[in-house]
Amino acid sequence: RGELRCICIMAVLARSVLVTGSNRGIGLELVRQLAASPWPPHHIFATCRHPEGPRGKVSVDTVNVPSIQGAVRAVDSHLKDQGLNLLINNAGVSSHATLHSLDSQEMLSVFATNVVGTLQEFLPLLEKAAKGAGKEGLSCSRAAVINVSTKLGSIGLCLGVLQAPMYPYRASKAAQNMVTRCLAVELQEKGILCAAIHPGWVKTDMGTEEAPLMVEHSVRGILTVLASLSQDTSGTFLDWEGNSLPW
Amino acid sequence: RGELRCICIMAVLARSVLVTGSNRGIGLELVRQLAASPWPPHHIFATCRHPEGPRGKVSVDTVNVPSIQGAVRAVDSHLKDQGLNLLINNAGVSSHATLHSLDSQEMLSVFATNVVGTLQEFLPLLEKAAKGAGKEGLSCSRAAVINVSTKLGSIGLCLGVLQAPMYPYRASKAAQNMVTRCLAVELQEKGILCAAIHPGWVKTDMGTEEAPLMVEHSVRGILTVLASLSQDTSGTFLDWEGNSLPW
Repeated sequence: RGELRCICIMAVLARSVLVTGSNRGIGLELVRQLAASPWPPHHIFATCRHPEGPRGKVSVDTVNVPSIQGAVRAVDSHLKDQGLNLLINNAGVSSHATLHSLDSQEMLSVFATNVVGTLQEFLPLLEKAAKGAGKEGLSCSRAAVINVSTKLGSIGLCLGVLQAPMYPYRASKAAQNMVTRCLAVELQEKGILCAAIHPGWVKTDMGTEEAPLMVEHSVRGILTVLASLSQDTSGTFLDWEGNSLPW
Repeated sequence: RGELRCICIMAVLARSVLVTGSNRGIGLELVRQLAASPWPPHHIFATCRHPEGPRGKVSVDTVNVPSIQGAVRAVDSHLKDQGLNLLINNAGVSSHATLHSLDSQEMLSVFATNVVGTLQEFLPLLEKAAKGAGKEGLSCSRAAVINVSTKLGSIGLCLGVLQAPMYPYRASKAAQNMVTRCLAVELQEKGILCAAIHPGWVKTDMGTEEAPLMVEHSVRGILTVLASLSQDTSGTFLDWEGNSLPW
């Protein structure tokens, strides 16, 4: 019964969805579950740096602006005048630097991928979707930017620093959370929802085999949470089960 | 009487203090009030990018690692074996980019100055001070890193985004706050206190003439707050009046 409910929710999630970093891990599973729904989105854009990999359809390297712009043009021509409903910024890199091994070049390279992202270039397509949706209020089916964040990016929780210092990763995710919250304020009147999602600690290449959570389980939760988002939850930081996290 | 109390506090603040970005604004006023105390610190290192400017004694460009290392050697040789008690990371840049004018190079350049900072290179001098101080617990007179932050870097408050988007500045300060909090956890057992301070919106080149707060007033408050910091307030985010701010 849980499975059926989930498929139902996915059927109405969004007409078009773009997922960055979709060649593996959480990104690949998001695309897989969206595509496997009996009423899948009309358009799923599965982007990654190396589109020859599994399921990559449009090339996006989130630190390479010309490649993002190329992807925006390709996506726009597929969608005609309907715009993009849902952008899931999932691409990201981790970093295990401690205070002592930390170098500023690594910090900046992690920031470049995790914070700067694809946001700005896809915004016109999201605005187009928000205008043309014939809907009021905020939802992923109208227009939304979802930033895949992490509990390790919660300054308030500041979990396990001694076991996992990861300064560049944590700092970049706090910065990304700030951008998410500012975007939510700025884009609300344009009808675009923004939220940060913690996918849990998931068994992926990034999360390692030590992680307790299966990617299928995490992604099913994320898609259920996305379907539930509204005006009231825009600008919040939620985990894959819908629990609120402190900034 | 207020003035007398303040001078008293300053007399015991710390034996040695290094202030970055001290050629103007809050940094210059910090150095001025510290030096004007009847019992000033034995060593005040007023660092800035262009030491030919007012009161710059050691050259530090916070984005130029070789110059930080040169400054560390100079500071170490002045202090002999006593280490540095108090590092005030005040150097920072602002940025008025909106979502649309934002470019990723600017975002990274703001991060380079505001987050990466001087922290790592001065750490051995702080550890030396913490060990040699003959004191228990945490305090600015033993060993401390104070990061000058801003209320605009509070993700929880997310103030005035429509009036002042300032994405790179806000994101960099959220990232810096994360580093402050992680440092507080990691350095506690070494006897080093860490905290983030919001100086208020101050009439300086950065704050502009519109700002409501005089730099003398802000800095008097900051020094009073620094003198009051202890184990209980390490890892917190306080304003110049000692009020706690949400991350």
